[in-house]
Amino acid sequence: MHDCETLAREVIARCKTLARFTEVADSIHRTFLSPPMRDCHLEIAKWVAPLGVTSKVDAAGNLRIAYSADKVGSRVPRLLIGSHLDTVPSAGAYDGVLGVVIAIALLRSMNGRRFPFAIEVIGFSEEEGVRFGTPFIGSRALIGTLNDEVLKRRDARGISMGEAIAEFGLNSKEISDAALPDDVVGFLEFHIEQGPILENTGRSLGVVEVIAGQSRLTFRFIGQANHAGTTPMNLRHDAIAAAAEWIGAVERRAKSVQDLVATVGAIKVKPGVGNVIAGEAELTLDVRHQDDEVRNAAVDYLIDEAEHIANNRGLKVETAELLNQRAVAMDPFLSGQIAEAMQKVGCEPYRMVSGAGHDAMIMATKIPSAMIFLRTPGGVSHDPAESVRAADVAQAIDCGVTLLEQLASSSKFLSLMPRTQRA
Amino acid sequence: MHDCETLAREVIARCKTLARFTEVADSIHRTFLSPPMRDCHLEIAKWVAPLGVTSKVDAAGNLRIAYSADKVGSRVPRLLIGSHLDTVPSAGAYDGVLGVVIAIALLRSMNGRRFPFAIEVIGFSEEEGVRFGTPFIGSRALIGTLNDEVLKRRDARGISMGEAIAEFGLNSKEISDAALPDDVVGFLEFHIEQGPILENTGRSLGVVEVIAGQSRLTFRFIGQANHAGTTPMNLRHDAIAAAAEWIGAVERRAKSVQDLVATVGAIKVKPGVGNVIAGEAELTLDVRHQDDEVRNAAVDYLIDEAEHIANNRGLKVETAELLNQRAVAMDPFLSGQIAEAMQKVGCEPYRMVSGAGHDAMIMATKIPSAMIFLRTPGGVSHDPAESVRAADVAQAIDCGVTLLEQLASSSKFLSLMPRTQRA
Repeated sequence: MHDCETLAREVIARCKTLARFTEVADSIHRTFLSPPMRDCHLEIAKWVAPLGVTSKVDAAGNLRIAYSADKVGSRVPRLLIGSHLDTVPSAGAYDGVLGVVIAIALLRSMNGRRFPFAIEVIGFSEEEGVRFGTPFIGSRALIGTLNDEVLKRRDARGISMGEAIAEFGLNSKEISDAALPDDVVGFLEFHIEQGPILENTGRSLGVVEVIAGQSRLTFRFIGQANHAGTTPMNLRHDAIAAAAEWIGAVERRAKSVQDLVATVGAIKVKPGVGNVIAGEAELTLDVRHQDDEVRNAAVDYLIDEAEHIANNRGLKVETAELLNQRAVAMDPFLSGQIAEAMQKVGCEPYRMVSGAGHDAMIMATKIPSAMIFLRTPGGVSHDPAESVRAADVAQAIDCGVTLLEQLASSSKFLSLMPRTQRA
Repeated sequence: MHDCETLAREVIARCKTLARFTEVADSIHRTFLSPPMRDCHLEIAKWVAPLGVTSKVDAAGNLRIAYSADKVGSRVPRLLIGSHLDTVPSAGAYDGVLGVVIAIALLRSMNGRRFPFAIEVIGFSEEEGVRFGTPFIGSRALIGTLNDEVLKRRDARGISMGEAIAEFGLNSKEISDAALPDDVVGFLEFHIEQGPILENTGRSLGVVEVIAGQSRLTFRFIGQANHAGTTPMNLRHDAIAAAAEWIGAVERRAKSVQDLVATVGAIKVKPGVGNVIAGEAELTLDVRHQDDEVRNAAVDYLIDEAEHIANNRGLKVETAELLNQRAVAMDPFLSGQIAEAMQKVGCEPYRMVSGAGHDAMIMATKIPSAMIFLRTPGGVSHDPAESVRAADVAQAIDCGVTLLEQLASSSKFLSLMPRTQRA
């Protein structure tokens, strides 16, 4: 068996190698179906060729590496392990990629040994939503929700998703073949936390219990632009002042409710000139919580607050909801197995909420799914400074190896019925 | 003598006529030394030709219309009356222009009669600062501060001010000839208030006692951009939240001090994305008050507050002062004469502060200056909806006619020493 520290060093080196496949020099920028994504697939294919696997790229551009079980038959279950290979612009080297490379390290650790379940490593083609403004394209192909409407969307250069698939040498008519095979009984995703919680609690790894639900809205305060020198304070209808009061309310609400996060990340004002009172301010609101009722109550309260503030100041406010996505629970059995494995490798399992969306959130709508988070130094992600600690990666691999051993001897896991037979 | 209502209707019609001389179709947009400015000069020249005046355009592009006194001699004083002829983009028809056209109406009202002082009507070439980013070019030529450094500034097309003067057919070497003649003893400016105070107090006219001093600064809050979903509220260094707290402090301070106005008119955030906590927020601050000590104390307090808020939240803040312009008092004798004239025409004189800068602010640094404000419906200015009430214009003309009569019989005014003889 491989030594986890050695595998961890290899994993980090491989993440850095894949970072070289980029659309923008001196930056990590690799979007759905781009030429560097093909180079990335070819590089990974070289790594896994000696491992006794079969590799392919499905019609949605997902890299799929199959490692068969120690037997064949209609009741042999299959476990998917993976994450995504696309990046945001100016990305770090680990977001998504680390989960794929760790999955390959787990295959490496097996040294040709086979388990009573098959393993499929998956490198999702698209999670970030950069190229077409639509995230989770890869995992949506697996759960069968990548319909014709989505395929018609166009990128910034006017190329439709269907055309991009053809340009990459794939056939969009075969997307239905990318759907989850019937023998799949679970999905496991390793991912950097992309937040500061593990670091702040002194943990290397976390077990995700739930991926938070998310609301996204826009608020537009409409007041009256006017001269900053000639309009007394009591006769103003200042959209920036109203927006500022409301931003304070957003922050206070989030701070007063356990685990709630609420963010105003963008504000645009008109006319936006130093000597003119702002007539309009448009803001974004992002609210997340593991409990949908808590999240929806916060959104309702903040809409009321905006109206209250606008009324008091003689402004109007318009709100629009862009997204209302329910929280998604991870599978309790798989998460329990992960916690057990963590404990065995000397890591007190830290059960946590994922504030960010992940492929596991999409996969969980169809199959039991679970996530392992790795500590993210400084909580820094979506940034070239993104990093991981080698010791944490070693512990994640150790935990993964232990988990696979557990599942191999778990009669409950091995008796999980493939979906078609459950249906 | 002309009837003031008739003159007022003519004044409004003439403002609308001049509004047709524009660089942008279906909009009022007339900048310094533009072709429509020449058309504007030619139109006014037609109006004043029958009045027994001499007209010229000085080397700084100011239109100057001289109406001589009833006598000649080295001790005959001259009163300047005027305002500016340039406009902001998407302007109304009255800002600046109204003051020039009312001055011409006053000459009309005299029906060829001469006073013991000369009158010069001036249409300043540039007050708004649109073309070269430098305001008050016309009045600065009169007080002699239009130096070579200013003449080298370039507009958006790369044309220097000196070149623009030559293109207009003028000679920038003659700018010193545009300086105030030695016989000038005062400057009088009619202007729309551009604010809501007269309307809100039910007055048609106001006497400006002081033009407020103005501070302009930028504030940059520097926090840490981070993921809106994965960063707990207590670990954030949110630049928008810090900025919002400070904007609240700006508003509270201004509301707590009589006559103080303070405005955050622009805010720009980075990265400015809905699902990312803002790492940077840059804001403008505009503070005005008639008492420089009050204004400077407010600015000092708001810098302290910004630092206090930034410290509490683990951010940094950088401030930069762009402008610190002292308040300028109008001349008490001329203002008193205006108040007396207002009372005579049935208008209770309302003494007020101008929150906006005007040519009178520049002229006051060299000669006694005074301003009469006209009520601005809705306080709306710098906007196509800018308007004036005909009755208010008639009252302003009536007040002006009365003021000229008073000055003609004021031994104090007539004995004001021309500047060279005072020096």
